[in-house]
Amino acid sequence: MLKRVLVGRKLKSSQTGRTQLAKKIALPIFASDALSSVAYAPDEILITLSLAGMAGMVFDWKIAIMVAFVMFIVVMSYRQTVHAYPNGGGDYEVATANFGQNSGLIVASALLVDYVMTVAVSVSSGIQNAKSMLTWLHGHEGIAAAVVILTIMTINLRGVKESGRFFAIPTYLFMVSVLGTSAWGLFRHYVLHADISGPMAAYSLSPAPAYSGFTGFAVVFLVARAFSSGCAALTGVEAISNGVPNFKPPKSRNAATTLALLGGISITMLMGIIALAGLTGAKVVDPASGATLTLDGRPVAVPTPTVMAQLAQGVFHDFPPAMWVVILSTMVVLFLAANTAFNGFPTLGSVLARDGFLPRALHTRGDRLAYSNGIMMLGVAAAALVLVFNASVTALIQLYVVGVFVSFTISQAGMMRHWTRHLRIETDQAARAVMLRSRVINAIGFTCTSIVLVVVLISKFIHGAYLAILAMVCLFVLMKAIHRHYGRVRDEVRLRTPQDTALPSRVRAVVWVLDVDKPLARAVAVARAMRLADVEAVTVSVDPEETEELLTAWEAQKFPVPLKVLASPFREVTSPLVNYIRSIRSANPRDVVCVFVPELVVGHWWERVLHDQSPLMVKARLHLLPRVMVISVPYQLDSSALAEGRIRRIDPHYSPGTDSRS
Amino acid sequence: MLKRVLVGRKLKSSQTGRTQLAKKIALPIFASDALSSVAYAPDEILITLSLAGMAGMVFDWKIAIMVAFVMFIVVMSYRQTVHAYPNGGGDYEVATANFGQNSGLIVASALLVDYVMTVAVSVSSGIQNAKSMLTWLHGHEGIAAAVVILTIMTINLRGVKESGRFFAIPTYLFMVSVLGTSAWGLFRHYVLHADISGPMAAYSLSPAPAYSGFTGFAVVFLVARAFSSGCAALTGVEAISNGVPNFKPPKSRNAATTLALLGGISITMLMGIIALAGLTGAKVVDPASGATLTLDGRPVAVPTPTVMAQLAQGVFHDFPPAMWVVILSTMVVLFLAANTAFNGFPTLGSVLARDGFLPRALHTRGDRLAYSNGIMMLGVAAAALVLVFNASVTALIQLYVVGVFVSFTISQAGMMRHWTRHLRIETDQAARAVMLRSRVINAIGFTCTSIVLVVVLISKFIHGAYLAILAMVCLFVLMKAIHRHYGRVRDEVRLRTPQDTALPSRVRAVVWVLDVDKPLARAVAVARAMRLADVEAVTVSVDPEETEELLTAWEAQKFPVPLKVLASPFREVTSPLVNYIRSIRSANPRDVVCVFVPELVVGHWWERVLHDQSPLMVKARLHLLPRVMVISVPYQLDSSALAEGRIRRIDPHYSPGTDSRS
Repeated sequence: MLKRVLVGRKLKSSQTGRTQLAKKIALPIFASDALSSVAYAPDEILITLSLAGMAGMVFDWKIAIMVAFVMFIVVMSYRQTVHAYPNGGGDYEVATANFGQNSGLIVASALLVDYVMTVAVSVSSGIQNAKSMLTWLHGHEGIAAAVVILTIMTINLRGVKESGRFFAIPTYLFMVSVLGTSAWGLFRHYVLHADISGPMAAYSLSPAPAYSGFTGFAVVFLVARAFSSGCAALTGVEAISNGVPNFKPPKSRNAATTLALLGGISITMLMGIIALAGLTGAKVVDPASGATLTLDGRPVAVPTPTVMAQLAQGVFHDFPPAMWVVILSTMVVLFLAANTAFNGFPTLGSVLARDGFLPRALHTRGDRLAYSNGIMMLGVAAAALVLVFNASVTALIQLYVVGVFVSFTISQAGMMRHWTRHLRIETDQAARAVMLRSRVINAIGFTCTSIVLVVVLISKFIHGAYLAILAMVCLFVLMKAIHRHYGRVRDEVRLRTPQDTALPSRVRAVVWVLDVDKPLARAVAVARAMRLADVEAVTVSVDPEETEELLTAWEAQKFPVPLKVLASPFREVTSPLVNYIRSIRSANPRDVVCVFVPELVVGHWWERVLHDQSPLMVKARLHLLPRVMVISVPYQLDSSALAEGRIRRIDPHYSPGTDSRS
Repeated sequence: MLKRVLVGRKLKSSQTGRTQLAKKIALPIFASDALSSVAYAPDEILITLSLAGMAGMVFDWKIAIMVAFVMFIVVMSYRQTVHAYPNGGGDYEVATANFGQNSGLIVASALLVDYVMTVAVSVSSGIQNAKSMLTWLHGHEGIAAAVVILTIMTINLRGVKESGRFFAIPTYLFMVSVLGTSAWGLFRHYVLHADISGPMAAYSLSPAPAYSGFTGFAVVFLVARAFSSGCAALTGVEAISNGVPNFKPPKSRNAATTLALLGGISITMLMGIIALAGLTGAKVVDPASGATLTLDGRPVAVPTPTVMAQLAQGVFHDFPPAMWVVILSTMVVLFLAANTAFNGFPTLGSVLARDGFLPRALHTRGDRLAYSNGIMMLGVAAAALVLVFNASVTALIQLYVVGVFVSFTISQAGMMRHWTRHLRIETDQAARAVMLRSRVINAIGFTCTSIVLVVVLISKFIHGAYLAILAMVCLFVLMKAIHRHYGRVRDEVRLRTPQDTALPSRVRAVVWVLDVDKPLARAVAVARAMRLADVEAVTVSVDPEETEELLTAWEAQKFPVPLKVLASPFREVTSPLVNYIRSIRSANPRDVVCVFVPELVVGHWWERVLHDQSPLMVKARLHLLPRVMVISVPYQLDSSALAEGRIRRIDPHYSPGTDSRS
């Protein structure tokens, strides 16, 4: 009942078409990750630079332009992918198709890790933004982030379409507020010559002791780290190429247009924020790093709000409602960004499960056509992560990005190979020209992303990237092992010889007698009605008196079936019974033994505590014996109607028909 | 494997005789509770009196004599019970036989609660004693006590005989050390005129503010409370009457002699300790109560050791090894006292389970003829209690005693009725004289214990006794409810009419097809070999492509069985299948439907995660349908040999016979 309320009504398979998305809905769903990352990428650039007291116009700008350039290249590259793989050319498919299974799995491992990181980083950043308004969140960031993640998870269990509508408005609001803040801030500063100093403008930066007197190579290295962190702004671009089939036709074209839109908007927003950050005197410091703020030459310890909060306070310091809208929409869009991963992760998980790399349970669609198991796995993993890292974006960002660029790089290389392969068979000149152009673009993309990957690896490895790489390696090994296991089992159960379908010569029946009552009578009746080769009853004698009573009751019923009493010197039931069945099958190597187990079916959980659970033990042991079948003969107590009633309430497809309990 | 090492080898039923106890072994086993309670009863008397600054020779003595008197009466009374009920006349049987089920259940509830309290109080007191040597225990009393309880639980899962031997030596050592300390202390004081002042002798007592200027009725009330706490010394006396069948023949006489011995030793020890407590200036204060110690007129806050520790330090201050022996043997014997409850609780639980008042699982003997389930329940409940009360004896003692006296009183009343009933039919004059004498003794016992019960109830109710009474009421209601449930089920499954054993007209077979593989082939073969009325195969179509492949594979095998494909618009497996089975049985109201479910049997837990668990769901749902049987057709993967191997290692009664896996 509860589940039904939480996740909404079920959808039929034929309703899948309903979940196809128009561009205006697809943009917020698939692009909120990439768009929202401009909310924390500037923070991480400034934090890293502040280590050496270098946060200032020059480096900020240079780094932002580099990031924007990489983003432009990546967007252009993925537009080729979207056209080449209209059925959802995710990086996994591209890598598998062009380089084979192992490359595909490397990409898949990277993507799975990055989906978890996307959720953790986005929600953590959302909480950090919220803190500037909801100060009581301070000290509870981890818990708050975990609660938000589990809430998003629940919403996603409802299915993608309603999520889309739900998410469109705040994403557009975020775009408007970021672009609006930038425009209005620049206008006020350059045209109105008004003061737009933010809350940190009065402070100065004092570098961390370890970084003072920092020159040459060290500066390059720190700038590289700042650039790597800033590249977080690129995450999420690949989401659209994974989701092509979810677009309205013409799918590829709509997806490519959405990608271009996304790239343009992201770059504009990033440049706007960086420009404004300099004008408002925004400063962000990670207290753990050793860098400090000074006021009038004296060091002071004040927590620094997020860059978005500082900009909003600077530009709208005389109009708080606008400030609140900016901060709130930033927070909400970051939460929505996490939603992107809740679309991507289960889809990828399902594809991997279909190919036998993850447990099959990830491939079965849940009630609302969403991949419930994957959604829940992602939610739990991300919630654990924010609890461990206490929702610190600066700590989490070190694990991020590396996965994205692993899959970017392999995917671009795959695309180059894709075009080369197609060029070999394509003869139409116009088509060849398009392909050649695409290959050039992908080659540029590959060069650029592989350079960034190396930079990211070198600059962030010891700061946390090694953890992400470790997780990827574990996933890779795990998926290979699962694949091997499925292959082994498939081999084992494959029908080969006529022997495999041969009939046993006879079927023997053994009825296990626990008590002489209706459940037993039913078991005996079914065994007899089957007219099997040999029907016998057995009971295990634990207590001589009880056995005597049982024998008397058995005689009274005059069942035309012999009863055998098994001695149990150790007052145990399972072993004597199992050993007896074992001896029957050893004596009749071409027969099958059917063990009839009368079972009481109860309706309450507590009734299970009160009734004998030995059938469960016996059944588990008998399952290990080849040529032994267990027939559960259920006897439904009146209370079991309760359980039936519960199912009737939960399952809308329950069809009682002309059925009656009799 | 681990279990086998922990609990030792199994015992045969016929080895039960081996667990009969000689008096010298029975005394420590059944009497360690009663004996050891003299280690904490004096503490509680002194603590209560210290509230009003009244701890001194006069009241201590008076209360100790009253407690000793009650103990004498109770021991005399129980000697009658032991003779009257040689088959283990526990208070439960006495009450049930003479007053009927409800009285029996009241006694049973009281005893069950008190067994838990015995374990909690004894172990807590043991830890408090240990603290005077192992000072690092301070602040971890609750955890330490819980660890000790779970250790004793494990030892008891090994069985009673070895426990007996294991427990005899320290119990005798405790008797010798308490009596020796008393004798040596009195000798040193009165004969050698040596100084035997304990560590607290230099301090004075200052009453709690609430109790200063305390007179008349209030004093009486406080003395009554001290007396009630002192009556903890009586707990455990009834253990012997419960355990008569465990004695060597002549059972009753041996048990009665053991009882008399126990009473004599207990009284002697109690008087010795109280006498010495005065001479050594022993003082115990509960810091929570507000009473304080003063030194040279100034209040000081020092933790007070237990009385036993103070006596040992006073008498043996110049010979520490003897001091350590006293404290250590006290600690160990208190732990052993907990063991008494581990004998009594499972025995009572088993009797109650046999009579249908507790879950049947408590009546099945475990491997070592000990009632494993009961032992574990007791251990867990007591461990929880010491964790909640942080092993404070003073807090726990408030919940204690009331249960003991409830069962004492009802049991003595029952014995009066027992003799009256027997006197009515007994004609032999000598026998009548013995019975008349017994009845008088039991009447005195009843009067005495009922007075103590009233005193205990009045003086301790608000201090915690209400919790014990609440627990008893809950147990009582629970046991009645369980009894009603079993009765209802017995009625429901009783065979009444010939209809109950009638054969179904036909047995139909439905084979559930998940994949075309060896498990399926086996299921089809068994279904065909049974030559049932109607064999058909069904599969649920979740994905059209997969279904197409499955149909092709099915055709290829040329099974002479029709395959029906069920549509599943909601991509679900369970509901369509269950609804179909439901429709078959509705259409054939006199037939039985057998559903063949091919199942993969795996050896590793993780394999279960990887393989489809939908059969479990389907089986659970089908169980609710009358006239539907589920036949599990197991297919053992090679890895399942691992599970079989595990059982072979664990189960010494595993008989492979001429068996081979084929």
